[in-house]
Amino acid sequence: MNQRYALGLDFGTNSCRSLLIDLESGAELGSSVSAYPSGSAGILLDPGDAHVARQNPQDYLDGMHAIIIGALEQARVLDPDFDASRVIGIGVDTTGSTPIPVNAEGTPLGLLPEFAGNLDAQVWLWRDHTAHAEAEEITALAAREYPAYLAKCGGRYSSEWFWSKILRLKRTNPEVFAAAHSFVEHCDYIPAVLCGTTAPSAIRRSICAAGHKAMFHPAWGGLPSKEFLARLDPALADLRDRLYDEAFPSDQAAGKLCAEQAAKLGLRPGIAVAVGAFDAHMGAVGAGIREGTLVKILGTSTCDLMIHPNQQPLADIPGLCGIVDGSVLPGYYGLEAGQSAVGDMFLWLVNNLVPDSYGATVEEKFQSMEAALSTLRPGATGLLSLDWNNGNRTILTDARLTGLLIGQTLHTKAHEIYRALIEATAFGALTIINRLEEYGAMVNEIINTGGLAVKNAALMQIYADVLGRPMKVSRSDQTCALGAAIFGAAAAGTLESGYDSVQDAQRALCRLREKTWLPNPGHHAVYTRLYGLYRQLHDAFGTQEWSGRLNHVMKELLALREEGGGGEG
Amino acid sequence: MNQRYALGLDFGTNSCRSLLIDLESGAELGSSVSAYPSGSAGILLDPGDAHVARQNPQDYLDGMHAIIIGALEQARVLDPDFDASRVIGIGVDTTGSTPIPVNAEGTPLGLLPEFAGNLDAQVWLWRDHTAHAEAEEITALAAREYPAYLAKCGGRYSSEWFWSKILRLKRTNPEVFAAAHSFVEHCDYIPAVLCGTTAPSAIRRSICAAGHKAMFHPAWGGLPSKEFLARLDPALADLRDRLYDEAFPSDQAAGKLCAEQAAKLGLRPGIAVAVGAFDAHMGAVGAGIREGTLVKILGTSTCDLMIHPNQQPLADIPGLCGIVDGSVLPGYYGLEAGQSAVGDMFLWLVNNLVPDSYGATVEEKFQSMEAALSTLRPGATGLLSLDWNNGNRTILTDARLTGLLIGQTLHTKAHEIYRALIEATAFGALTIINRLEEYGAMVNEIINTGGLAVKNAALMQIYADVLGRPMKVSRSDQTCALGAAIFGAAAAGTLESGYDSVQDAQRALCRLREKTWLPNPGHHAVYTRLYGLYRQLHDAFGTQEWSGRLNHVMKELLALREEGGGGEG
Repeated sequence: MNQRYALGLDFGTNSCRSLLIDLESGAELGSSVSAYPSGSAGILLDPGDAHVARQNPQDYLDGMHAIIIGALEQARVLDPDFDASRVIGIGVDTTGSTPIPVNAEGTPLGLLPEFAGNLDAQVWLWRDHTAHAEAEEITALAAREYPAYLAKCGGRYSSEWFWSKILRLKRTNPEVFAAAHSFVEHCDYIPAVLCGTTAPSAIRRSICAAGHKAMFHPAWGGLPSKEFLARLDPALADLRDRLYDEAFPSDQAAGKLCAEQAAKLGLRPGIAVAVGAFDAHMGAVGAGIREGTLVKILGTSTCDLMIHPNQQPLADIPGLCGIVDGSVLPGYYGLEAGQSAVGDMFLWLVNNLVPDSYGATVEEKFQSMEAALSTLRPGATGLLSLDWNNGNRTILTDARLTGLLIGQTLHTKAHEIYRALIEATAFGALTIINRLEEYGAMVNEIINTGGLAVKNAALMQIYADVLGRPMKVSRSDQTCALGAAIFGAAAAGTLESGYDSVQDAQRALCRLREKTWLPNPGHHAVYTRLYGLYRQLHDAFGTQEWSGRLNHVMKELLALREEGGGGEG
Repeated sequence: MNQRYALGLDFGTNSCRSLLIDLESGAELGSSVSAYPSGSAGILLDPGDAHVARQNPQDYLDGMHAIIIGALEQARVLDPDFDASRVIGIGVDTTGSTPIPVNAEGTPLGLLPEFAGNLDAQVWLWRDHTAHAEAEEITALAAREYPAYLAKCGGRYSSEWFWSKILRLKRTNPEVFAAAHSFVEHCDYIPAVLCGTTAPSAIRRSICAAGHKAMFHPAWGGLPSKEFLARLDPALADLRDRLYDEAFPSDQAAGKLCAEQAAKLGLRPGIAVAVGAFDAHMGAVGAGIREGTLVKILGTSTCDLMIHPNQQPLADIPGLCGIVDGSVLPGYYGLEAGQSAVGDMFLWLVNNLVPDSYGATVEEKFQSMEAALSTLRPGATGLLSLDWNNGNRTILTDARLTGLLIGQTLHTKAHEIYRALIEATAFGALTIINRLEEYGAMVNEIINTGGLAVKNAALMQIYADVLGRPMKVSRSDQTCALGAAIFGAAAAGTLESGYDSVQDAQRALCRLREKTWLPNPGHHAVYTRLYGLYRQLHDAFGTQEWSGRLNHVMKELLALREEGGGGEG
């Protein structure tokens, strides 16, 4: 059999990266990264409004070319006989919900001269939180009169999602809204560019993006009804006609690579381009997700993914941000949860609250803090933190929550706070697992991926100790791009790819690292007590239902600090 | 009339200082500071127990000589005709409760060769918190069977006080306890040394120190009953016979300066040495305390002092750590409140959590943080903090409380946290004022003194804005030593001093600075809302009575941040 390759393209928050894999051996033949040049680390900010986070669509186009060409060049360096015409498919994942206002030809408004420098005409990055009032309005209307719409997205519609952002644009910049013929998700735009079919009506949209984030569901015939949208704004009801009626999983092709792009990129025209999806969903596939596996993508924020056969009943799970048929793997519900800030919280600490006595650079500070916190036993800091500096995605689905730190004394050190923040994110992770299992999605295995999973040994041990479960780590450093490449192969079909299904390809291509982090039972016992306190603070500050007392919290933290339980760190 | 001078000696936590004043003009003729050389900034620490804080009695003796001689030398430099024999009296204030174990001659055990290096035989500094279990035991026994004992000290006996420390010593180091014939407060020891009468039975003890801190009260015949003490430990009942039956206010003489000390110091033998008192109480006198005046001594911690005529009824005030007849001025109840950490909390922040981008030194960091926070309007940080990093003295009288910070995001900066800590201490100050006024001690005027009052303009404005009252500042930088000098003069008597009473001397010698900090009504309105949230957290985490909901707190902080209320900073 001839050699066959697939390309995965992963568009993150600050950069995009490619991965070229050999579909037989699983070898990673080439990979290239391109940082978005615009704004601050690729994000267009508004000094007057910290909620604004936009991106320049030109960064996507330039980056896409650079990373494809870069990966192919690497492969040629590795093997002079490398034949780019043996690339059989391309898969694409991006952040989301990251909608792009486009004109009737599908050109992003941000690329047009008349909208140069207009922040509202650019891409509305997932992280943009300007639309929190609109999110509340959508949630309130749906809760009152269209409760089915909310049940699939955890009970609360987010400011990060499609309709919130579009309604916000309509309200605050009607000129740009009027110029927008339609809106296309970033993950639908890149495949359309590769296929040369950007006209909005011609794009095969991603079920992963359409799913809860655009309130798309077969139960009500696709996007939400015109009646519902008209109640928010009549212009949204009109817009519905210029969006889409169908959405597809990523094992299907969005189209074929067009001749123009093929020539630019040095690839064979006509190869498959898979329907796009969000990064976490393809990352879960690249990490080897299967029934009973929770994949945790540990980065600046986290995404937690599971799947559940779509032939078996599954209740709506309160607080889970999405349950969408086919969003991860065809034939399965994709269950999506996540934490709004994990690595971002550690970066905030090190950038703002860590003195130079820990080191001159961010890297040095992290290293010496990790060394210092690793000698501590659980409970020894006397600290307890919530993990809400950027709100809470799961299980509270509330962006308007903030941080909380309790237990500090006149002796508290920065590395102790760092440990408390790591523990807080682990407690947040446990809260998600508990919620999944309460509703029948049993977690038999946890596979971790993302930067923190491979770089932060102290964090992985604390997670194992808090969760009381082994923490496995996927072998590839680039599970999102790997998942995208697998979908690129799947979209090319069995004959081309040699695999019967996405799962068949996963079994061949997805591996684990040898090192698995195992829980220390003594530490787990201490953390179980600390988690009880975390959960009380979580419920007290994050829910309307909680009512009670909290005067025991500081006393118990002091007692845990003094007990010395849990053995040495 | 001939010139007449008085000397005040102020023994602080890390150093002691003197002030020599001209009793006619009020001029400050000389002042000298001596840092305690032992341990860490004068404090003997135990690396294995952060609660330990002891001092070397030799530091007091060496410091006392150095600062008296230093002040007299300064006066001679200023005026070659200065005549030290015109010094008519010496007053002494110290930290407290700071008990010293002594032998039958009144020699501190820590000065004896056999106890060299034995931490338990040294002075037990006020800040030592090793005796928290014993404090709880004393509180529990008194609450159950001797409730009157508690009513005068706010409802809870502190680990910082006399009996807690002595019981702790008996329990954990019976050899040192057995070697201690008696225990003498630091403020009683220094006058005794000056008078050459250190034998415990010969010392005229301070009512200020004996008052609530040793549970001394005329209502039950002085110190607590032998029955009560025996219930704690029979050895304490025996000890009671070797303590004291009487205690005196500081306008009375502890004795006369003995010939030996007079010769060493270059003073006239036989001059008056006043009964000692705690630093805050004499500081209040030096700041000009009178009926209706609250004196705030703003330093590493704070003391808040008021007086109330002892002929007028005054209820016990829950949570106030002391109400003692004569502890501040004869004829008045002294009302003592305080905050366990103010400046110490800011120092903790700057030493542990402020990056060098704010400056290379502690001083530079404070300066640039003050500049940055002064541009913010109230509410703009979105943060709210409690001021309990070192526990809460008033109104909760609970050392086992810790810090809490809420509202941090991924954008929170160190100077914003600094502002939140300043605000927290202001909210703590307001809680004390409200409690005083609820029980009939009306605050008509606030006079501030101490390092923060003269060095920290941002803090003073925030305090004025939070309290909604003018913040006056006493003119002397050394109000404690000034108060001590006034008592030295009073103890010498009217004929010698030229003043009829302590109040008469105050009117002549205590002045205010020209600058008074006035509240901004817009800022005060915002702070009144923030204080409502502070008080809910205060009650939720600090009291057994509170029960309720807290899910509004983060939302209201976000709303205040976004509102822009209160005008520019």
